[in-house]
Amino acid sequence: MAYQHILFAADFSDEALRIGERAKEIASQCGARLSFIHVIEDMNISLCGGYELLPVLPDVPDETLLQAAQQALGKIANRLEMENATQWVVSAPSTREGILEAARNHSVDLIVVGSHGRHGLALLLGSTANAVLHGAPCDVLAIRI
Amino acid sequence: MAYQHILFAADFSDEALRIGERAKEIASQCGARLSFIHVIEDMNISLCGGYELLPVLPDVPDETLLQAAQQALGKIANRLEMENATQWVVSAPSTREGILEAARNHSVDLIVVGSHGRHGLALLLGSTANAVLHGAPCDVLAIRI
Repeated sequence: MAYQHILFAADFSDEALRIGERAKEIASQCGARLSFIHVIEDMNISLCGGYELLPVLPDVPDETLLQAAQQALGKIANRLEMENATQWVVSAPSTREGILEAARNHSVDLIVVGSHGRHGLALLLGSTANAVLHGAPCDVLAIRI
Repeated sequence: MAYQHILFAADFSDEALRIGERAKEIASQCGARLSFIHVIEDMNISLCGGYELLPVLPDVPDETLLQAAQQALGKIANRLEMENATQWVVSAPSTREGILEAARNHSVDLIVVGSHGRHGLALLLGSTANAVLHGAPCDVLAIRI
């Protein structure tokens, strides 16, 4: 398993830490770099059409959300003693797109996700599994906890 | 990656051999046992109901199909110099069920599939990715060729 750059897609579920431990083990065995990503889905309501009919939504404080996610991801990295690893918190139309774009842009050759959880394989696959797998630029390991 | 029993779900696509090579590498690095499986989907028309309305279908020579699949799987194992590995050709209502049942029955801790192909991850997941992942008793590695 000669992976060189492993991307751990971390949600903040109870399982995240244990999946992260596995990702760290694998990276260590491969001598690979390990990076962390968490995706915040940006729901752009204006893209849905007909938004003028919706009640006025409270302003979502994007910056606050981002900071909270960065802190939570940092905490996971700390618990794994990987505080120096690259940590991305990105905002994307979908978790899948966020993860795959990062994988493409940073020459990731293995994505590690949980089988379940909010960043799990099902989400990475989205509703059209085939289409997504065509999009995945690399191997995907779904960890079962 | 301390896997002990790895199951390579082989279809007979052009990519099967290269995915098998990867599965073999991983097994060798883990000191794990590697087994092979190929699933033949049995379409039991009588389960669909209303089958009395269908034209009479020619008898499918199940035995012939099985033998052909066993030969094809054996060929892959030979090419990988793994002729002594356990090889299962099973008939199941779906590829997914065949793979997952074998994984459960034989204490498999990693399933290796191609991202694409007839035994690929999309098929393993089926149409309801979430339900399937709940069913998967172990980790799943989707290899991208």
